Amino acid sequence: SPSKDIDHILETQSALAVDLGGTHLRVAVVSSTGEILDVVSRVAPHQSNEERMNQILKLLKEQSLKAISLNCRVLGIGVSTGGRVNPTEGIVMHSTDSLKGWDEVDLRTPISSVLHLPVWVDNDGNCSALGEKKYGSGKGLDNFICIATGTACLEKAESFNERNPGIGGGMVLDGKLVHGSNFCAAELGHIKVSLDGPDCLCGSKGCMEAYCSGSALTREAKKLHASGDLIVDGMMLQEGEEISAKHLIEASQLGNKKAKAVIELGGKAMSVGITSLLHTLNPSKIILCGVLGSLYADMVRKYIKEHGLPSATNVDIIVSDLKEPALLGAASLVLEYTTRRTY
Amino acid sequence: SPSKDIDHILETQSALAVDLGGTHLRVAVVSSTGEILDVVSRVAPHQSNEERMNQILKLLKEQSLKAISLNCRVLGIGVSTGGRVNPTEGIVMHSTDSLKGWDEVDLRTPISSVLHLPVWVDNDGNCSALGEKKYGSGKGLDNFICIATGTACLEKAESFNERNPGIGGGMVLDGKLVHGSNFCAAELGHIKVSLDGPDCLCGSKGCMEAYCSGSALTREAKKLHASGDLIVDGMMLQEGEEISAKHLIEASQLGNKKAKAVIELGGKAMSVGITSLLHTLNPSKIILCGVLGSLYADMVRKYIKEHGLPSATNVDIIVSDLKEPALLGAASLVLEYTTRRTY
Ligand SMILES: [Ca+2]
Ligand SMILES: [Ca+2]
Ligand SMILES: [Zn+2]
Ligand SMILES: [Zn+2]
Repeated sequence: SPSKDIDHILETQSALAVDLGGTHLRVAVVSSTGEILDVVSRVAPHQSNEERMNQILKLLKEQSLKAISLNCRVLGIGVSTGGRVNPTEGIVMHSTDSLKGWDEVDLRTPISSVLHLPVWVDNDGNCSALGEKKYGSGKGLDNFICIATGTACLEKAESFNERNPGIGGGMVLDGKLVHGSNFCAAELGHIKVSLDGPDCLCGSKGCMEAYCSGSALTREAKKLHASGDLIVDGMMLQEGEEISAKHLIEASQLGNKKAKAVIELGGKAMSVGITSLLHTLNPSKIILCGVLGSLYADMVRKYIKEHGLPSATNVDIIVSDLKEPALLGAASLVLEYTTRRTY
Repeated sequence: SPSKDIDHILETQSALAVDLGGTHLRVAVVSSTGEILDVVSRVAPHQSNEERMNQILKLLKEQSLKAISLNCRVLGIGVSTGGRVNPTEGIVMHSTDSLKGWDEVDLRTPISSVLHLPVWVDNDGNCSALGEKKYGSGKGLDNFICIATGTACLEKAESFNERNPGIGGGMVLDGKLVHGSNFCAAELGHIKVSLDGPDCLCGSKGCMEAYCSGSALTREAKKLHASGDLIVDGMMLQEGEEISAKHLIEASQLGNKKAKAVIELGGKAMSVGITSLLHTLNPSKIILCGVLGSLYADMVRKYIKEHGLPSATNVDIIVSDLKEPALLGAASLVLEYTTRRTY
């Protein structure tokens, strides 16, 4: 086995990456090549801010020991969190209901002072875009947009409903993330696709996510189920199983025309929203992240060919092949900045 | 009177600014403080590219003599043109019908070699945004969006219809114009506001401009006139007068409810499109340029208060007070770059 000195030379440059969502907290050791070397996960909804912060610090301490045992040199900590983030200050300014009370929370100061490492913070949609830029389909691109439809797998309805409420996103223009004038750019789920249209969780109507998000499909699945129009031959419901978007997709695949019409309307809404993005920002690629990306990709490709301006539709519509874009993006906050030697 | 030497010291730093639209060509001498010291104008639709270029060169030579007589030192030439522009190369890549054939036209090389001055080119929407940034409501702002609804006054129906076909725009993010991956960002008229909706000149349906542009209002005015529903007491048509948006606006102001409903639908469409822009880019200001801005501004303000995300609607909706944003923006291309001493 190599000597202690060689060991030191062979240390892996790495980052600790935090992914904080409404129901889960995960902390990973990520190498500079984008390998997730270790990840711990806690299911932890409905915590107070103090409990949440304590749990973050606890898992970070655990993972920083783990990093040592993996012979990793940790350069810093990157945090991906739900909510509106001021990345310059490392503060969560405001969150939606899934992270209730997670407002005006300074993440940088406590984490940095306990772990003795530099800390970067951005919101989950932006981190996903950064993950794609450094390790995924956005590599080498100056202008692309990520549209994220949640992160859970389709296996379990409860996890689907908990982790796929809306649509998020992140945008890279001229090589840099767009944050906007007060850090709430890329609220892509609330692009309007209709003058009226169905109610959205944001309080308005006709938003893209009111048609095509996981929660929109779940809403329609429940409606169909209530009128006896969801379940078709070949489908089995467990006793007490909660109806979700996954049942709608399954029904559609098994030939249920009403289910199929709901998904097609969702695909049209996403296509219309994406067309507006193409005409506004003219990206070279749209990356569909998350569980519903592959459901809609072909519909989007077909629609923009028919309805987009020719010069703006010279664009790739891609389904992400990253399993953990937000975690990788959180790591890249560290690995990009420390390489440039600027804080 | 001051000596020749003093005269030289007192020369006004200035730019020649070209504004090329579908029916008009204008060339101005603009001082670095944003004063339009002299402007010549030619009405010249349906020219060949060679005729167009010759006319541009002719007026530029005229105006460069004028500049000398005004004791101006001309630092360069800025060109605002309709169409998709590659500003790095100074080339018009492609134009729409209003500048037929105006494709793959190198403006920089011939103008620069005849006038012996550096030349910058950008499209009219982008120039409007630059004009606002240097001399108008965008001064000092890093994130704002201009939405342009044509430039003619409302006085003459013919001029209205010729010069207000669509909706253009320009966007400044993080202090810089957004051009996109192949120079067709900011096609703001073709933001979708409806899953279906009325036909748009672009070949699609439901675009913002199909509801609220000058040509959309003119289309609806003609429909109302055809069914005898446009003209109300107090309106007078000249013999052979062409019906346009201005009649619709007049009718609405005189109490015509059908005309009013058309304008309200237009205002709603513009509001919905602007809400999508706010949720995507989170600018601190929206500047409505052109003849229809003041018609829609209050409707937009009211709508976004009710339908926008609170953090994204902390935004000023402003009607431009510049008479010539595109000309001033063309001048600012010169005056900004030469000040920085980079070409
Ligand atoms: Ca976001
Ligand atoms: Ca434009
Ligand atoms: Zn919404
Ligand atoms: Zn259109």
